[in-house]
Amino acid sequence: MQRVIVDMDEVIADPMNEMIDWYRRHYGGQIDYEKMLTGSWVVGFPEEHHHLVMERLLSPGFFRHLPVIKDSVEVLEEMNRKYEIFIVSAATEFPNSLKDKLDWLFEHFPFLGWRQLTLCGDKSIVHGDFMIDDHLKNLKHFNGQKYLFTAAHNLGVTGYERINNWQEAAKIFLQ
Amino acid sequence: MQRVIVDMDEVIADPMNEMIDWYRRHYGGQIDYEKMLTGSWVVGFPEEHHHLVMERLLSPGFFRHLPVIKDSVEVLEEMNRKYEIFIVSAATEFPNSLKDKLDWLFEHFPFLGWRQLTLCGDKSIVHGDFMIDDHLKNLKHFNGQKYLFTAAHNLGVTGYERINNWQEAAKIFLQ
Repeated sequence: MQRVIVDMDEVIADPMNEMIDWYRRHYGGQIDYEKMLTGSWVVGFPEEHHHLVMERLLSPGFFRHLPVIKDSVEVLEEMNRKYEIFIVSAATEFPNSLKDKLDWLFEHFPFLGWRQLTLCGDKSIVHGDFMIDDHLKNLKHFNGQKYLFTAAHNLGVTGYERINNWQEAAKIFLQ
Repeated sequence: MQRVIVDMDEVIADPMNEMIDWYRRHYGGQIDYEKMLTGSWVVGFPEEHHHLVMERLLSPGFFRHLPVIKDSVEVLEEMNRKYEIFIVSAATEFPNSLKDKLDWLFEHFPFLGWRQLTLCGDKSIVHGDFMIDDHLKNLKHFNGQKYLFTAAHNLGVTGYERINNWQEAAKIFLQ
C-alpha cells in the first residue's frame, strides 16, 4: 500500500480563516493578503496585532475548534481504503495544540486511528510515497512525490505540482 | 550530519520503574518479570491490576514526572553536537501524555529544541541513519542501523545489536 502524508493546518483544518473571523469580530483591522505571500498567513495581520495572533495560536483550545477544509473528510475517507494515510502536523512549536489536534482529528475523521497521527517539529523526519502540504519547508526534504496544497500564503509559489482543493485530490488519488 | 532517532520510554525516561514503585506502595503485589518477556512490561503486573496500570498510563501527569534513565542526559548532550538527534515517542495512544512528554523532555534535556521531538503512533513513518529503541515493533521497519536498548521486557530477544546503557551508547557514537 502506498503511503500518503497529509498535513493538517490549511489542508484539512482551517486555522487561518478561524483567526481572520475572530480578528475582524474583535479588532476590525485590515488583513493584507499580499504580505502573506512571504510564506506565512500570520504576517497578513497588522504588525501591532501579531502578538495577539501568536498568543491565540499558543492558547489551549484554539486548535480544538477549527473549521474543516471542504470535502477533505469525504475524500480522505475514500483514500483511507486505498492508501496508508498518515496525518503529519508540525505541532511541537505549540505545546497546547497537541491534544487539541488529536481530539479535533478523531472528532472529524473518525475513520482514522491513533497510529495514523504524527505530531512533530520538523517534517524532514517522515518518509513516504506522496506528501500533500501547504508549506515548501515541509515538502522540500521529502523523498516522494510532492503536492503543494494551495493556500493564501503560497499563491506566488511556482515549480511545484499543486492540489487546489480536495476534489482535485480525489481526481489524482481515486481515479 | 547523520540522524539518530532516540526513543523516550525505557530509553531516556523510566515509566516502568515509576509504575512498579507506585504499585508496590499502594497494592504490594508481586511483579512477574518473566511475563514481561512476552514484549510488554504492563503484563508483569498481576492481571487483576492491569486496568489500574492502564488507567494510570492514560491519566494526565503520569508522563510528566518520570525518572530519567542514567547517563542519558550527559551522553545525549554530547551526541547533540555531532548528530542530528530526534526524540521519537509512540504517544498518540495516550492522548494525555503528549504535552507531559514535551514538558518532561525540555525540563531534563534543555539543549534539545521543539524541532527535535516527534510524537507519533507508528514509527514506520520516520527514517534516519540510526535508531535506538527498546521495542522490536519500532525497529522492525527502520531503514538505518538498529540498536535494541536493553529493557526488562526485551531480555529474551536475540538477533539485534544491543545498547545496554548510555555509557555503551557513548562508546558507539562518541569515540
